Amino acid sequence: MSSHPSDTDNEKLEQLVSLMRGLGTRTVLYQQNVAASLGLYDNDLKSVDILRETGPITAGELSKITGLATGSITALVDRLEKVGYVRRQNDPHDRRRVIIVPQYEHKEEVSGTYRPLHTAMIELASTYSGEELELITAFIGKASAIMEQQIRSLHAERGKTSS
Amino acid sequence: MSSHPSDTDNEKLEQLVSLMRGLGTRTVLYQQNVAASLGLYDNDLKSVDILRETGPITAGELSKITGLATGSITALVDRLEKVGYVRRQNDPHDRRRVIIVPQYEHKEEVSGTYRPLHTAMIELASTYSGEELELITAFIGKASAIMEQQIRSLHAERGKTSS
Repeated sequence: MSSHPSDTDNEKLEQLVSLMRGLGTRTVLYQQNVAASLGLYDNDLKSVDILRETGPITAGELSKITGLATGSITALVDRLEKVGYVRRQNDPHDRRRVIIVPQYEHKEEVSGTYRPLHTAMIELASTYSGEELELITAFIGKASAIMEQQIRSLHAERGKTSS
Repeated sequence: MSSHPSDTDNEKLEQLVSLMRGLGTRTVLYQQNVAASLGLYDNDLKSVDILRETGPITAGELSKITGLATGSITALVDRLEKVGYVRRQNDPHDRRRVIIVPQYEHKEEVSGTYRPLHTAMIELASTYSGEELELITAFIGKASAIMEQQIRSLHAERGKTSS
């Protein structure tokens, strides 16, 4: 590609970004439908997903990652503990800290609900060569890092205006 | 790729799908933070986004796409109309139908909130060649179609069990 992108190049860039946004909207709606199917609140499901990635963390850490207020996190963990999705326990490395331990793996209904999406995505991925997969995987990883950065900066912005 | 994928191939597939899931979680959290920044409910923002894609549609159509119950849609459109994000009007092609018209473009704060993400994504996309962009764009389009299919099927499942 030349250093002065042509109109066609710009169109291609905008097309990809617009499709990414469309994928984002559908992802949000999908999660909402999964939550409804499991009888969970939207935000509760996101936190279950975060814990699945991070492993046991404190309420404060969960608040930072999700952008939810600490008070909302307490209520959320109460709800999730009640239905057996997480449990609170003392941090074995520091008894003064309480960590939230995901019990995701015990919930067959959760993995069952996600399974059709997982299967369909594996099928789609299987249609690509190893080299193509690497390119796409790197792109998704970078897009994910951008998202994290954007969440942090929106969260920080709100902290500024509310103080 | 051979017709019998090796363990390495399977690892690559699982890695991509797992990264897609991570991107999904971050997208959901991002949207939640955007909603909080704009003082909107989560679901309300999703519907604004849907309307931005579809253009004017009826409450029934919006209910089908979002998976939200018709009653929730009525309350949602009331809230969005109050803050000037949408307006209800009679369908010019069929006066008996009421359609919801997005007024998204009037909301500078909405586009302003999304702008940093858009800029960062365009920058990321600019690092790829035209050919690579086409490959990635096609993948994102297909992943998006899978999501739509999954939303429809979760929605249909719930319809079955609740009847």
